[in-house]
Amino acid sequence: MAEMDARPGEVRLPFDPATQVDATITFIGRIRSPWSDPATCPKNLRQARERGGGGTLELAPGYEGGLQGLAPGDTIIALYWMDRSRRDLLVQAPRHREGTAGVFALRSPVRPNPIALATVRIEAIDQAAGTVRIDAIDCLDGTPLLDIKPWIATVDRGDAG
Amino acid sequence: MAEMDARPGEVRLPFDPATQVDATITFIGRIRSPWSDPATCPKNLRQARERGGGGTLELAPGYEGGLQGLAPGDTIIALYWMDRSRRDLLVQAPRHREGTAGVFALRSPVRPNPIALATVRIEAIDQAAGTVRIDAIDCLDGTPLLDIKPWIATVDRGDAG
Repeated sequence: MAEMDARPGEVRLPFDPATQVDATITFIGRIRSPWSDPATCPKNLRQARERGGGGTLELAPGYEGGLQGLAPGDTIIALYWMDRSRRDLLVQAPRHREGTAGVFALRSPVRPNPIALATVRIEAIDQAAGTVRIDAIDCLDGTPLLDIKPWIATVDRGDAG
Repeated sequence: MAEMDARPGEVRLPFDPATQVDATITFIGRIRSPWSDPATCPKNLRQARERGGGGTLELAPGYEGGLQGLAPGDTIIALYWMDRSRRDLLVQAPRHREGTAGVFALRSPVRPNPIALATVRIEAIDQAAGTVRIDAIDCLDGTPLLDIKPWIATVDRGDAG
């Protein structure tokens, strides 16, 4: 790998996590978003909300029944797989902040396991079709979906107590 | 598979997600918890907090630098791999509630990709050792760690706005 793959101050892992296989994941569907160009895709959920457009979680055939019990207005956590991201940058120099930070202090899609997380609101749901319309999403159209979880205030509010 | 593997009303997927491999994950460490017996392990983070004892995220060698920028008092989101959970139960009948619900409306560890999520507070951090002491955790001792992310109020508070 060429040194120019990292910006000044960045630190790579001495191995590529993509080659260290401890478990396997399955894609349960895809995320439909208004963003098809990496250059103009929102970098985070705040930017996505500002720009509007929403998004849709499309479950793969067979998973539709898993939506039973969810309803419009509910808040959910979507987990998705940033399949275009490298996985070996341990310390990063993001363009939006001064200096460097460890990957675990950043929400960068570049991470050992490129799992992204978005807390979003359900706007509409079609259980028969296996689709969930959400208020915003910050990933490229077609991004693989890994999981949907209900957001629960008593445990998921990090500023409680 | 025997029908008795599911409780009344439960629905299994027609395939086992564990055999549908779309991507691979690496374990970046392990979670040390007070819980070594599945029978008495807290079922969720609320129960874990009530029982006390905290926990520790132990990074595997090489990942220590990724903690740069985190500090005691910070809230983080830990993602971990529920490696003892089956993955094929689409509709479930949890003991704690009436009737059945789809897996995406539940925080059950039984899910197509058994990724669990805990929003926790950092109590102490030892970057050289690659350890992060946290206020509570609801998984068995030794559970594989997948990721640590900073919790960000402006996007992660599902009850905002």
